[in-house]
Order: sequence, then C-alpha cells, then structure tokens
Amino acid sequence: MAEPFALGMDLGATTVTTLAYHRRYGVLVRTRIPSRVSDGPAATLKRLAAELKRVRALSEVPWAAYKAVGLGAPGPLDLKAGLILKTPNLKGWNRVPVARRLRRAVGLPVLLENDARCAAWAEFRLGAGRGCRDMALLTLGTGVGGGIILDGALRRGPDHSAGELGFVYLDRNPGAPRAAFGLPGSLEALASAPALVRAARASLGRGKTGPLWRLCQGRPASADAAMLHRALRLGDRHATAAWDQAGQALGLAAASLINALNLERLIFGGGVMQGGGRELLSRIRRTAKAGAYPQAFRRCRIGAATLGPEAGAIGAAELALGDPA
Amino acid sequence: MAEPFALGMDLGATTVTTLAYHRRYGVLVRTRIPSRVSDGPAATLKRLAAELKRVRALSEVPWAAYKAVGLGAPGPLDLKAGLILKTPNLKGWNRVPVARRLRRAVGLPVLLENDARCAAWAEFRLGAGRGCRDMALLTLGTGVGGGIILDGALRRGPDHSAGELGFVYLDRNPGAPRAAFGLPGSLEALASAPALVRAARASLGRGKTGPLWRLCQGRPASADAAMLHRALRLGDRHATAAWDQAGQALGLAAASLINALNLERLIFGGGVMQGGGRELLSRIRRTAKAGAYPQAFRRCRIGAATLGPEAGAIGAAELALGDPA
Repeated sequence: MAEPFALGMDLGATTVTTLAYHRRYGVLVRTRIPSRVSDGPAATLKRLAAELKRVRALSEVPWAAYKAVGLGAPGPLDLKAGLILKTPNLKGWNRVPVARRLRRAVGLPVLLENDARCAAWAEFRLGAGRGCRDMALLTLGTGVGGGIILDGALRRGPDHSAGELGFVYLDRNPGAPRAAFGLPGSLEALASAPALVRAARASLGRGKTGPLWRLCQGRPASADAAMLHRALRLGDRHATAAWDQAGQALGLAAASLINALNLERLIFGGGVMQGGGRELLSRIRRTAKAGAYPQAFRRCRIGAATLGPEAGAIGAAELALGDPA
Repeated sequence: MAEPFALGMDLGATTVTTLAYHRRYGVLVRTRIPSRVSDGPAATLKRLAAELKRVRALSEVPWAAYKAVGLGAPGPLDLKAGLILKTPNLKGWNRVPVARRLRRAVGLPVLLENDARCAAWAEFRLGAGRGCRDMALLTLGTGVGGGIILDGALRRGPDHSAGELGFVYLDRNPGAPRAAFGLPGSLEALASAPALVRAARASLGRGKTGPLWRLCQGRPASADAAMLHRALRLGDRHATAAWDQAGQALGLAAASLINALNLERLIFGGGVMQGGGRELLSRIRRTAKAGAYPQAFRRCRIGAATLGPEAGAIGAAELALGDPA
C-alpha cells in the first residue's frame, strides 16, 4: 500500500499555518491565514475546518490518500480527550473539543499535540535534530515554548504537559521580570520577544541616545522587535543589553538542561532567533559552557532550528502519520 | 536457580556504606567506615576491597551466591570504562579505574554508578518512589545531587552525566552565592548543607540575637548544621531565613522540573532533610505550587526520601543485580 498523506496545522495566537505533507514528497501545499481566535472557538473551528478542506483541494490528492490531521496548538491541552484547555494564549477558550469537532468536519482522525512539541518533533526528524537521540527545542516568540526528546521519544509525561521550558526559573528574586503566568524570573519573562522589548525600553529610559533611540523617535514605548533587530546590527547598546539579558538567561537554562538531562542538541527557534539568532547563540554558548559540566557541555551542540515557522505544522503532520511502516 | 545476592557500596566523601543485599531478604549486613579518600586512590581502593570481603564474610553467604558488586560514587564518572573522573568531592582522584581494580580484588563484576542516581533508583524501586513511573530525587547534603527516572528507566544520558540537579540555576545575578563548581546561583550554592550554614551565618552578622546566636556563643563562624536544626525548631529567625532561602530555591527548581518533565514524584533526601525536612518540604511545596502549571503540579507528589543514608548502597546493589529474572 502506498504511504499516506497527512494534513498538518499549527494554530498560533495570530496565524494558522496549514500544509499537505507526505514523508517522501515533503510539503506539497502550504497556506497561512490569520487565526482570529478572539472570534471564539465556534467561529475559529469553522474556519480551521474550511482551511483543511482548502489545502486538501489545493494538494490535488484525493481524501482517500489522507490518513490523518495533525493539529499543533498552544498548551495546556488534554491530548487524550483532544481538548484545548484554558490557556493565556487563546483568550476565552476553555476545554474546547477541537479534535472531535475537526474530525467531524473533515472525516479524518485528528491528532492534537502541543505546538512547541510538534516543532521539536519536526526538528528532530527533519531539521537541526536529525541523527541525535536526546535533544530539546526552545521556541522564542511571543512566549517561550519547548519540546524534549529523550532516547528518540517525544517526552509528553503522564499529563501530557512536559516540555514547558518557558517556565524554567532563572531568577529567584521577587523583583525579577515576570510573564503572564507563574512566578517572576521565568525564562518566558526573560527571553521571549516581549521580554526583549521590555528590557530594551527600560534601558532606553536610562540613556536616551543611540540608534534605537533614533529608530523609535525618542518614544521608548513605540520600540518594537523589528527596531530592536535593526538596532542590534548597528551595535546599539540598548538592544545589546536586551540580548545580553536573554542570552544569559537562555545560557543558564541551557546549562541546567545539559546538567539535568545530558542532551546531544539544544536547538533554538522562533521569531526572536530569526531577528538576532547568531548574536543570541554566541551568548547562550558562552554562559552554558561556564555553567555546565565540561563533558556534558562538549557533547551538546547548541544551534538554530532549521525548519522555520512551518516546523509546528510539519511536526503535527509527522506525528499524525505515526510510526513509519 | 536461586536468586543471587549482591554487595552494594556507597563511596561518600566522608563515609563508605557497604551492605549485603538480596531482593527477597533485603539488607543482611550493613557497615559504615570512614572513607579517608585523601589517602589517595590506591590506599582507598585497598580498604574498599577489604570491606567488601568483610561484609561478604559477615553475611555468611558463600561467594558463589553473589552475582555482582554495585558501587555508587560521586560523579563525574565514566560508567562504561568504570572510571572515577576528576571530581571536586574526591580530591586527587582522576580517571581511577575503580571497577576493574575492585573486580580483580574480589572476583565479581563491579557496576559503577553515580551515587545520587543509585539513591534515586533505590527510592524508585523500594522507597518513596514506589508505584510511579516518572520521578526525580534530590539529595541535599555537602553537595546537591540528583537522579531522574522517566518512564520507569533511570536517565543516564549519552555521557552518563544526567541528573546533576545541583547545577540547575535559580539566580542569574552575578552576586548570587556560588558553589565549588559552575556559575553563581546553582541549587548547590543555595540549598546544600554548607549553603544553609553560610546563609545563617550571614544573617547572624546582621542581627546578633536569638537562639542560634546563643547556641554558637556569639561566634557565627562556629555555627554548624546541628545548631541550625536545633535553632530552627526554636523558631530562630536566622535559621528560618536560611530555610526560607533553601526552600524557595528548591521550590523553584521543583517547579522547573515539573514544568519541563511532568513528574509524578519529587523526592528530597540527604542530611539536610534529616535535620529540617518537614520545614523544608512545606516551603518547597508552596513555591512549586505558585510556579508550576496547575495540572502538572497536582500530579506531582512532593515528599521525603524514606530509605535514609543506605539508599545509595541499596540502589547500587539493585542495579548490580540487573533486571528481575
């Protein structure tokens, strides 16, 4: 029997990425639409189902050749029941049975998985993690997500909540920066895109000169990620300070993960890496080297994700296809 | 064929624990001798071999009924080659082939394993971890060690260096307390026995009253762990401050581990727990609850190790016996 196709979908807070995927032929069709999750679950699910049908039609492959749909979504999820639970990234969503609804709409089994774990699985099978057995991916975007693969298996844990690397803590001080969730000093509070912008804005408030000051026209509150990336290239000290903060926090998290788990690869992806990845990686490596056991550090290659923003949808499709025949 | 016996030995920085062990009959004989590792590897190994022979004789079980020796030792180790590598806890030891030397001396295969991982395995099989699949043990003593069990298997990693939970980082500030190894802000720098003593001494320097001040007769430098434990029971604020620091750091580490790995049990052992375990656990739970994802936190039971200081030697013997027939 011919190997089947799968539809992969990544439901982000702002964008939905959908693709038609085959293990041999790769990605046949890819689309991106705004997710508009604030419309509420019912309207969003209708749009997701329509998009799956559209991508299937664009692929010109009959439904019968499709085995399943893989859906990556922000956690926390109930994977067994196929529910999106209450989550800060999808406001107003609570115990939404996405898997069942989409299955009914498109007539294929739907596998739900955490979005960052999908991306980690894609990098492991097809990207920067190829050829290793033990790795973690950290995605640095609006939030910080993660996925851990140990002995070649995706770590889910008994409640399917493993891999939340944005809530590893690196600063025990009560005044440390904090994210929407958890205690101060989490990785998400120190190294997400908003954390970088916050750090640069705070730095601007203390010294009103340099490229970033000019780019934001003297209004720190209007400084954004794109300006930061440009300013970083120009050697701006405010952008540099933000990168130093994130790089050090990520480096400590890397050292902690290497010491705890003895990984072969630590891979960083997400929007923050696209804008200033090289600068971040050098900082991460420097701190990780100083904080990790030497032999464990030597084993671990620290690098950038290679599959880009499609990783989540590709991983969802890969997982939906299941083990190779 | 009858189930075999094993000798289990835990080589600590100050004490060697040795025992004769059988899966059905438990611990038959146990001894403790000073390790005197500063005598150097050759003299120490001779003493270890003599102790194994002595315990075998005390067990009144013939050599033929013994299958193997399990040896727990402080990391880093090269498990495949059976070497103790250079380590801060065994000064002057470097690439010492302990497994081969002991095997030659006693005529049994010798399995070398990290001491904290041995203790974790013992707790998993026979102690506080019984009945779960995913757990971590943290041992709080002169140093902080750890062992992680995932899906029922001891996590070693490609270089056998996994589980070094003393070097998970909780304070990114350069002025944070530091241990003998790594960067400032490690768990070992914040929650080991010496870290507690350091914190209490620093607190004494700022306020020269209370039970601990009287116990140490006004000399903070002479305050030790035993005084701290007594003072803690008396509600002393310096001891309380030290426990607050350690409990918060351990709670953040617990939250990080729960978020990253979705564990069913987090178990704390070692000398620090014997002196003030209940007080520490309540602090750990409070911080972990505030920092972890709710559903993952609810799944995880946080508690004390139950096997005491023999855990390492028992785990070493258990591992040496291998999978049950």
